[in-house]
Amino acid sequence: MLHWLRHYRRAMLPGDISAGLVVAMMMIPQGMAYALVAGLPPVVGIYASIVPPVLYALFGTSTTQSVGPMAIISLMTASALAPLAPAGSSLYATLAAQLALITGAVLLLCGLLRIGFIANFFSRPVMSGFTIGSSIVIALGQLPALLGAKLPDVHLPSAMLGLGSLLLLLFARSRLAPLLRRLGLPATAADIGAKLAPMVVVLGSTALVPLLGLQALGVHTTGSVPTGLPILALDVSSSHWQALLQPALLIGFMVFLISMSGAQALALKRAEKLHSNRELVGLGAANLGSALTGGFPVTGSMSRSAVNFAAGANSQLASLITAALLALALVAPTGWLALMPLPTLAATIIVAVLGMLDTTTLRTAWRFDRLDAAALVATAGGVLALGVEAGVVIGVALSMGALIWRASRPHIAVLGRIPGTEHFRNIARHAAETAPGLLMLRVDAGLFFGNVDAVNERVEDELAAHPGTRDLVLVLSAVNEVDTTALFALNELNASLASRAIVLHLAEVKGPVMDRLKQSDLLARLNGQVFLSTAMAWDALANNKNA
Amino acid sequence: MLHWLRHYRRAMLPGDISAGLVVAMMMIPQGMAYALVAGLPPVVGIYASIVPPVLYALFGTSTTQSVGPMAIISLMTASALAPLAPAGSSLYATLAAQLALITGAVLLLCGLLRIGFIANFFSRPVMSGFTIGSSIVIALGQLPALLGAKLPDVHLPSAMLGLGSLLLLLFARSRLAPLLRRLGLPATAADIGAKLAPMVVVLGSTALVPLLGLQALGVHTTGSVPTGLPILALDVSSSHWQALLQPALLIGFMVFLISMSGAQALALKRAEKLHSNRELVGLGAANLGSALTGGFPVTGSMSRSAVNFAAGANSQLASLITAALLALALVAPTGWLALMPLPTLAATIIVAVLGMLDTTTLRTAWRFDRLDAAALVATAGGVLALGVEAGVVIGVALSMGALIWRASRPHIAVLGRIPGTEHFRNIARHAAETAPGLLMLRVDAGLFFGNVDAVNERVEDELAAHPGTRDLVLVLSAVNEVDTTALFALNELNASLASRAIVLHLAEVKGPVMDRLKQSDLLARLNGQVFLSTAMAWDALANNKNA
Repeated sequence: MLHWLRHYRRAMLPGDISAGLVVAMMMIPQGMAYALVAGLPPVVGIYASIVPPVLYALFGTSTTQSVGPMAIISLMTASALAPLAPAGSSLYATLAAQLALITGAVLLLCGLLRIGFIANFFSRPVMSGFTIGSSIVIALGQLPALLGAKLPDVHLPSAMLGLGSLLLLLFARSRLAPLLRRLGLPATAADIGAKLAPMVVVLGSTALVPLLGLQALGVHTTGSVPTGLPILALDVSSSHWQALLQPALLIGFMVFLISMSGAQALALKRAEKLHSNRELVGLGAANLGSALTGGFPVTGSMSRSAVNFAAGANSQLASLITAALLALALVAPTGWLALMPLPTLAATIIVAVLGMLDTTTLRTAWRFDRLDAAALVATAGGVLALGVEAGVVIGVALSMGALIWRASRPHIAVLGRIPGTEHFRNIARHAAETAPGLLMLRVDAGLFFGNVDAVNERVEDELAAHPGTRDLVLVLSAVNEVDTTALFALNELNASLASRAIVLHLAEVKGPVMDRLKQSDLLARLNGQVFLSTAMAWDALANNKNA
Repeated sequence: MLHWLRHYRRAMLPGDISAGLVVAMMMIPQGMAYALVAGLPPVVGIYASIVPPVLYALFGTSTTQSVGPMAIISLMTASALAPLAPAGSSLYATLAAQLALITGAVLLLCGLLRIGFIANFFSRPVMSGFTIGSSIVIALGQLPALLGAKLPDVHLPSAMLGLGSLLLLLFARSRLAPLLRRLGLPATAADIGAKLAPMVVVLGSTALVPLLGLQALGVHTTGSVPTGLPILALDVSSSHWQALLQPALLIGFMVFLISMSGAQALALKRAEKLHSNRELVGLGAANLGSALTGGFPVTGSMSRSAVNFAAGANSQLASLITAALLALALVAPTGWLALMPLPTLAATIIVAVLGMLDTTTLRTAWRFDRLDAAALVATAGGVLALGVEAGVVIGVALSMGALIWRASRPHIAVLGRIPGTEHFRNIARHAAETAPGLLMLRVDAGLFFGNVDAVNERVEDELAAHPGTRDLVLVLSAVNEVDTTALFALNELNASLASRAIVLHLAEVKGPVMDRLKQSDLLARLNGQVFLSTAMAWDALANNKNA
């Protein structure tokens, strides 16, 4: 806890201050926009950006992670609450905080149970597909706000403001940094300047609202934002806990995954080490904090953390400064916040999520492993067709499906001896000699429930191909584990072979696997022997020619 | 298709006839009892035992598998239909057939898509836990029928008949075979004779019903059984398809798993080979057949198939004979079937499922692998606490959870050279020399999304433990696969190490892995080299001492 504070050095302060400032400027429009995605009043997005990062700074392990509202988690929040209450109602806001509470409790519990390994249930292609699908859903969902009306209708003043903001932001994203560099700014400053474009565009369009009388023309704005800090309160009277549990589990899972994937990318750059179980605790505490201050589920945001990192953040002090600045903004007069036009906020959301439409993973997977590419496309399609919650389940199913599919095709080599040596190689690749009646198979995978059937099938195939086999040697040099299912399968194979007068031997059993097999009855029941090396098995069995 | 018929030999006929006869005698009480478990009229269990095995014989691959009603699948059917219609209603029967239709279609589709590997989603301990949990649920569910009333009430005549039948059947199960052997029967005949005890007990208690006037005393019987074969018809008018889809997916999965695990045990005994995709087609056709003849979901039954096998079945002709005999029983006068007392049928169910309460897997797993034992207990508990459908999901989750948990702890060895040799071994286990500035790590697992974080973490730990490292060699001799997630991780590790002036090398990359890496940009970006052997890496890098 507070590891970073104990090692704090004065030299880290300037970077933390500048990063804290930059992220605060980024956070005001982003927090408000992501609250809108979640179906909540914009100010809730700022509430959820104050206490959560402070609690994360206390319990988390990443030095530069910026915790707060995030587009995909907001989408999942909206999707969870939609069946339970109308967006904008006070019940909806209560349920959003309850959802954050359960999400936080689940994350905290997972951290205390030390099951951080659950992050490994998603492969990177599946995560990429999930992000792409969610981004498209979010962008499409913002079209009515951008255009001021549901398609095919368009509210012209809103649409002009929205599309204008969109063009400005798209320009800023691709052209502003080079432009600032040409104007003489250092590269980092130019990059960070470009990241502040949303704040500038939002401020500019907010100024236009009174200047052009846009409200009278029917352009919607955020509406009055209460001055003052959020109240420490949580309404636990309603009885929606059960309906919220399943979404909270899915949201907690994605909160953890999204935060970890961002934090890991940054940790690698600084050769820092993350502790997944403490990350769970940090994110759990952050969500509990969000719940207690009237917020909604939050997570570490990759894009915001990257800005934090680039703007010089050296420690979580940067996030504490951001939180303090946001709190200051709320106690200062907030009248101007009420005039923020929703079409512009919609434009900032669309540009932000378009930035998540990364096709690098898809292109790499397409060349490297078609199965992974297919899983990516299927996950994205699942999110689009069935929604973001189903998308999480589909993502896990596809990750596991790809894993089991690959496992069900273990590489198994028939071994022969390289003449005159003690080397044994795959007879399909090398000129290796075999001995009549002796069949040696090397299994190049741990033996577990996912491949025992495939191994059995291959053994039968090879026995059929080598009809005179008297001795079958399983060479386990590449077998790092044997689970209970595989233990039963080995016992059954031994019995089945015995009934056909074929003797089963093992060779090159690794130390940890042997230790484990000694706790079973396989070694006592085995018809054959356990050989230390393949060469010893060959010497003992290959000369048996006339047995 | 009909592989067994093309290779049929006359010598196989006597065995098939005797097995067909024995299984038919076993099937009448069992089919009726399992229809009751499913909440259906008893005769439906006989309907579901006629056409399904014929279709399985046409399309399936096991020679001795007996397809028909099965206790766990009946329980799942009841659980799926309970929310949709009252048991005993005609809507309920219609929905049962529709459920079989969707289950059959799903299985057929999976077979045509050749995704038989999905059977590998359940580990054996999880399957054992699922079976134990389901058996207990089924046995408890039969108590009211056994005792003639819901506890704490007891209907005395029913309870006496039920408990009497139960004691007789329990006696038959453990004592009858030895007794018959002592009376001079050959061992196999004695075993098979004991398996016919349910039929004898049911016939005896059916005879008691009119003799003692048990119906007048309030003992429930099966009620009138329509004479004649089932009608080829399927009512598709109702709109419950969507509600039935999810249960049908779970039932289809278990139909396949249960059938495969039974068929595999028998196939091993005869050194036969099963084709999982053709099994899916066979079971799919069987369920479609069940749907079209007013039945409900069916599967291959381990216990019945074992009797079929033991009674001498040599081919699927035995099942065809069973089906023909059952059809004959339905066209013969069926008045006597109406008098079968339900307490006795409940007793046959309880004894049958008690036979599935096998603790061998639990005891073996407890000694061999506690994680597997915990998964078994948790799955059984899940079925008992949350129901059989949740149990399937919990089983898959625990199988996958155990897999990912193990994967997230890959074995990684720091290698050193055995002095004077070209052998490189784990320095923790062998007296091996290392070279300053050179760190060699051997990863003993395929690199995939489930372990890339753990590998990264271990690399950072070892770099921290070896602060002067200039060259890091990943020895991939045990790496059989690299997926897209691991490819990205290797690229990121390479970049991260480069920024710290550490060069990343690879050694002993296996042929198939190298082929795949050549389709990526890793080899082009790699700061270091790819060495054919660890010894070559040592020779090139260990003498670099003063670099």
